[in-house]
Amino acid sequence: MNAPIVRQPVMTPDEAFIFLESVFHQIRGKFEIEEITSMRSRMRMKIGDGQLRPGGTVSGPTMFELADCAFYVAIMGMIGKEALTVTTNATINFLNKPAPVDLICEARILKLGKLLATGDATIWSEGQDAPVAHATMTYAIPPKR
Amino acid sequence: MNAPIVRQPVMTPDEAFIFLESVFHQIRGKFEIEEITSMRSRMRMKIGDGQLRPGGTVSGPTMFELADCAFYVAIMGMIGKEALTVTTNATINFLNKPAPVDLICEARILKLGKLLATGDATIWSEGQDAPVAHATMTYAIPPKR
Amino acid sequence: MNAPIVRQPVMTPDEAFIFLESVFHQIRGKFEIEEITSMRSRMRMKIGDGQLRPGGTVSGPTMFELADCAFYVAIMGMIGKEALTVTTNATINFLNKPAPVDLICEARILKLGKLLATGDATIWSEGQDAPVAHATMTYAIPPKR
Amino acid sequence: MNAPIVRQPVMTPDEAFIFLESVFHQIRGKFEIEEITSMRSRMRMKIGDGQLRPGGTVSGPTMFELADCAFYVAIMGMIGKEALTVTTNATINFLNKPAPVDLICEARILKLGKLLATGDATIWSEGQDAPVAHATMTYAIPPKR
Repeated sequence: MNAPIVRQPVMTPDEAFIFLESVFHQIRGKFEIEEITSMRSRMRMKIGDGQLRPGGTVSGPTMFELADCAFYVAIMGMIGKEALTVTTNATINFLNKPAPVDLICEARILKLGKLLATGDATIWSEGQDAPVAHATMTYAIPPKR
Repeated sequence: MNAPIVRQPVMTPDEAFIFLESVFHQIRGKFEIEEITSMRSRMRMKIGDGQLRPGGTVSGPTMFELADCAFYVAIMGMIGKEALTVTTNATINFLNKPAPVDLICEARILKLGKLLATGDATIWSEGQDAPVAHATMTYAIPPKR
Repeated sequence: MNAPIVRQPVMTPDEAFIFLESVFHQIRGKFEIEEITSMRSRMRMKIGDGQLRPGGTVSGPTMFELADCAFYVAIMGMIGKEALTVTTNATINFLNKPAPVDLICEARILKLGKLLATGDATIWSEGQDAPVAHATMTYAIPPKR
Repeated sequence: MNAPIVRQPVMTPDEAFIFLESVFHQIRGKFEIEEITSMRSRMRMKIGDGQLRPGGTVSGPTMFELADCAFYVAIMGMIGKEALTVTTNATINFLNKPAPVDLICEARILKLGKLLATGDATIWSEGQDAPVAHATMTYAIPPKR
């Protein structure tokens, strides 16, 4: 087996966060970027009343938004600021009922092509061992001008 | 081919709407239920600034929420009020950029089993011919007490 | 609503069939192309012992192959012979146990872009009303030389 | 964080292999089970002419069959011989063109419920670093008699 080529991130969590908040107004204040490493990101979603469903749990669309955002950040970490990068496909499995606490999401790029990036994201309730959701996603990357 | 057995809905759009708004506070005011027919529903999502992304488009999680809700309503139309019915799996393909107008979603149940209901949902920008998104979904149905 | 532009197919079922059998040796003799219309195809899979699982049913990978092939034919019907067109993503839901008879698959293109084509495919056991499987698929289309 | 409870497999690779080959005649001779550990399996698919597409690559349905089988084995490793366990949902992303060599698949159970088991499977061409495909899957587990 050849030694894999490890591509390094081109943005820090702080740089990515400032860009994210400036471009996506709707998600302002919801997320923290905890880590960006090669082909990966880890994000935190702060859970408040607006995200809770009956029974004190977190809604599916909220978890979808977290997975979508974490995967976006993982791609941005590798290719830089590309606000036009868009999700083309996502599959999400809801596995366990989330606790009414912050959610942690780890996204992983499995293929970073010129036009498409594909990977997955796993979500946990903070402090819990069993994942609450798992998503796979594909993003389209705009061609370089 | 045998004549298919057509199961009739057990709730009207008005009944379903009152239940939906009473149970899911977070979505209050976002949706209208336009139609519930056998194994199907049609919903409208009113698009305002809170749902718009840069460039005047609608975000992916917003479209996911609409598909999720329309499929929930289609199931509720057939089995009645089951607030605990939960999404277990969803796949969404984003097809065309939505216009900054209301979204229309048609959901269709393909299999209504005792434990799982599976189907799809197609979303259009009002007045446009090409769909903006297509989702397939599975919901778990709680056992009767 | 604008009247939609209906693009017509560029291949007949016979032309598509001859191409398919010449390029994909492994599927030779398994399929018949019953119809190609605008953005759609209908195929038949002949079910024999090689496709049956314990209990006289059809295996999941066999149904996946049928959906994949029908969607390929629907695309080929619109863009012509493109042997290099490849599946990038597929989601399949298995809904009902297939009968040990031929399978019929209807594929539908929802978005025919320059680089990606996305749509779905529904499979029935011949003569049955309830679908046995439903798939959504994305194919990458090679750039024109 | 609570220490996770690690459930141990109840079958060895040899036991699982004998069962698999006795029940699924169509896949006889195609696979080897390399490892079964807690909530995981690793399988090998021997690639011959029957699995190759034009250009010396492996077909999508063949990779789907491998992922499906590896996930089945991972479940069987945890719950024992359950020939009636069936796939209800699968999503597969094709990432890189496989080489004309054996495929290795690692399956992982993310949620082992009473009725549903959900997880993912990653496939590599032997000796290559970049994965060729990634799948997520849900299996229905028959109720205990």
